[in-house]
Amino acid sequence: MSEYQALKESCCEANKALPARNIVDLTFGNVSIVDRDRRVVAIKPSGVSYESLAPEDICVLKLDAQPDAEFNMDLKSAMVEGSLRPSSDTPTHVRLYQAFDDIGAVVHTHSRNATAFAQAGRPIPCMGTTHADYFYGEVPVTRPISASEIERHYEWETANVIVERFEDLDPNLVNAVLFHGHAPFVWGSSGSKAVETAFALEIIAEMAMKTRILNDSAMPLSQAQLGKHYLRKHGANAYYGQK
Amino acid sequence: MSEYQALKESCCEANKALPARNIVDLTFGNVSIVDRDRRVVAIKPSGVSYESLAPEDICVLKLDAQPDAEFNMDLKSAMVEGSLRPSSDTPTHVRLYQAFDDIGAVVHTHSRNATAFAQAGRPIPCMGTTHADYFYGEVPVTRPISASEIERHYEWETANVIVERFEDLDPNLVNAVLFHGHAPFVWGSSGSKAVETAFALEIIAEMAMKTRILNDSAMPLSQAQLGKHYLRKHGANAYYGQK
Amino acid sequence: MSEYQALKESCCEANKALPARNIVDLTFGNVSIVDRDRRVVAIKPSGVSYESLAPEDICVLKLDAQPDAEFNMDLKSAMVEGSLRPSSDTPTHVRLYQAFDDIGAVVHTHSRNATAFAQAGRPIPCMGTTHADYFYGEVPVTRPISASEIERHYEWETANVIVERFEDLDPNLVNAVLFHGHAPFVWGSSGSKAVETAFALEIIAEMAMKTRILNDSAMPLSQAQLGKHYLRKHGANAYYGQK
Amino acid sequence: MSEYQALKESCCEANKALPARNIVDLTFGNVSIVDRDRRVVAIKPSGVSYESLAPEDICVLKLDAQPDAEFNMDLKSAMVEGSLRPSSDTPTHVRLYQAFDDIGAVVHTHSRNATAFAQAGRPIPCMGTTHADYFYGEVPVTRPISASEIERHYEWETANVIVERFEDLDPNLVNAVLFHGHAPFVWGSSGSKAVETAFALEIIAEMAMKTRILNDSAMPLSQAQLGKHYLRKHGANAYYGQK
Repeated sequence: MSEYQALKESCCEANKALPARNIVDLTFGNVSIVDRDRRVVAIKPSGVSYESLAPEDICVLKLDAQPDAEFNMDLKSAMVEGSLRPSSDTPTHVRLYQAFDDIGAVVHTHSRNATAFAQAGRPIPCMGTTHADYFYGEVPVTRPISASEIERHYEWETANVIVERFEDLDPNLVNAVLFHGHAPFVWGSSGSKAVETAFALEIIAEMAMKTRILNDSAMPLSQAQLGKHYLRKHGANAYYGQK
Repeated sequence: MSEYQALKESCCEANKALPARNIVDLTFGNVSIVDRDRRVVAIKPSGVSYESLAPEDICVLKLDAQPDAEFNMDLKSAMVEGSLRPSSDTPTHVRLYQAFDDIGAVVHTHSRNATAFAQAGRPIPCMGTTHADYFYGEVPVTRPISASEIERHYEWETANVIVERFEDLDPNLVNAVLFHGHAPFVWGSSGSKAVETAFALEIIAEMAMKTRILNDSAMPLSQAQLGKHYLRKHGANAYYGQK
Repeated sequence: MSEYQALKESCCEANKALPARNIVDLTFGNVSIVDRDRRVVAIKPSGVSYESLAPEDICVLKLDAQPDAEFNMDLKSAMVEGSLRPSSDTPTHVRLYQAFDDIGAVVHTHSRNATAFAQAGRPIPCMGTTHADYFYGEVPVTRPISASEIERHYEWETANVIVERFEDLDPNLVNAVLFHGHAPFVWGSSGSKAVETAFALEIIAEMAMKTRILNDSAMPLSQAQLGKHYLRKHGANAYYGQK
Repeated sequence: MSEYQALKESCCEANKALPARNIVDLTFGNVSIVDRDRRVVAIKPSGVSYESLAPEDICVLKLDAQPDAEFNMDLKSAMVEGSLRPSSDTPTHVRLYQAFDDIGAVVHTHSRNATAFAQAGRPIPCMGTTHADYFYGEVPVTRPISASEIERHYEWETANVIVERFEDLDPNLVNAVLFHGHAPFVWGSSGSKAVETAFALEIIAEMAMKTRILNDSAMPLSQAQLGKHYLRKHGANAYYGQK
């Protein structure tokens, strides 16, 4: 049995949760989980259906993988375990783990409403408490990726554009980003938490769009109420849920 | 067996009806039921999934619970039965029962279309007979809650903002409110009636939004037709349904 | 066994098809079927759930029932068979059968998109071939019903407002109407055909609304294409489907 | 056993995938598959439900069928195998195979969001990478079909209008078209690929409509990113999926 068996099982289960939450179509989504102690990342293989996915299909790669001087990234030599080709988005995931120290899992989907915001180049403003329960403020949108970044190393630079967007933001308070013209990337402490957040993101995107249809000058939630809701669910004094 | 067994079973069943009606996502919703003779309120525990919820999980609290002089509310000492922490919205429910004498159950959801109206700060106008079958006139929206109210006692003051909104409205004729920037609160004579009304609210919100998309100057239903539909289903001369 | 057994079974089955087609919520809809030879109408009882509905619950009434000089309609004395109270919309159905000679079944729903058009007071324009496959031209909307009509006999006058709208329209070419501020009424040669048409109406309403969102000056289908599609499915030279 | 058994089974399976993908309502859709070696086309019979469809119901026709000098097309004499009447859209499919040399299957649906674009007379712009994964640029819309084309031979001329629209487009890079006032036609190398593309088309139509609601001056994806995404899934250097 693989020494990464538990990691691969968690990763497989989190990927299967995507269609169960109705936030992926076809094979437009993937979840990875990092093991920082053993410095590896487990991720879904490319283009495999969620239904047939099994723990032994999960790819395990080096957390410290880097593109070479010519900006090529040899995913094969970065592989630690697995016989299938990893998700084509793998370099984005790996780079996000390197940049954001505290995150344990990354989810990428093309969920329909969140993707509409990404395509519109618009952040999701915090219009209500549903949003505030999950994100401490608006969910930001990146700038478009440039032609030279695409040419250099598309998937690696995708992560760098996200990291650039978080220069003045705390990825632990806002666990998601909308990639301009692409779709959301979401993260969290665990696979199941990150998938739950990706699902919440889709819901708040739908609600924010409908809010805009009803009143295009509606005001975002007050800072006081945003703080109240976020902190009653997160942090040291949280009182939502069971201890 | 608990002396509140029947009450807890009704409360559990009404909470489980929320996902069955597709008006909650994740754990964004709760139902409480009051027993005015025994002066207790039964409510869902916080953050527990609807699927796994069982009657013995339901929390029973004192109907007469009050915040103290410092506006703290000790839910633990208000508990009459139950080992789990009650919904963080419990003070809102308790205060609504104290203010509205005739209601038997309170439902809180973040159902998507009704929440969009709440986030937009817009009431749901009575655009048709589907609405008039359930609500005698528009479903009102509250003012935003203030920073000082949030600080004093967020959940308790939430109910007070609702009560203020109903100063000139009869909560027995309009069984729902949209809390500005938050979501709907709905009530009724029983748990099942209140859940049905919460479901009807979501439907009329969707229809009212689509009506607005089609014709943003569409006129509300006439007073004559509103009265006709409301009264053929409610009150002494109702002739809808079986006797 | 009832002499109307087959009629009641067809009516029960057609009513059960409403939730199967996802065009009713709660108990917002009903189907009736006429037997012109025996001059009776079979209709759903009021407020009964579709799931529990059985053929023996169906009400059978006189096709020739009329309100009296004071515009009261005694549904009890119009009943031929059945122990439950018939749908409160019964007078509307009965009057439509009296006015439109060729129709065999009437369906009333509050399906969400068609109802949005009714609430907006807008007809559904024929924007494409899906529409033309079912309706020969736009689906009309009535005027609002007046306060005096509501007072005189609401459900009976509802049908009269529909009949007035069809003064210059052929109910055999356009099998549906949107009642202003209320919802659609649909008819057809049989219960199953009328339910299919009510479902098609909901689909074309959704598509027409989305078409308007994308291009609010989009042109309706040409008369040539409307005629082509309608006639390849209906009439003597139809060549759609199996003979 | 039929010498076309495998072809008929593939065609039957692809048609049954339409409701499974939720891209048809009622009988508004059909899939055909061509066998260029044996010069035949297999297609769904007209008006038959997907649920009951069996391989032996599939119609097999001559790929080289042509309308006569009076523009009549005798589908009966074009039939090679099958006892049911083929889809009324058969001449459109046959003509598309004659015009587009490389395609192996054609799918026609009235999927709701793609049809809304067709009814609006608007192409689907490439707003994001989900689109770019399937189509190399915008999905075009045809001009309306003329009255004389409808009269001459409606279904045959439908294909000619599509072919005209692709005069300067490569049908192998953009595998779909929106027929003005009608609905989408989609093609691909196989039945399952074409149905997958028809499903992707419906998703990107929904996303593009929502993008427009959020920002009606949002810019399409850059040419660089369009090329990157299309080519990482298609062509000689594709690196998406398993080899």
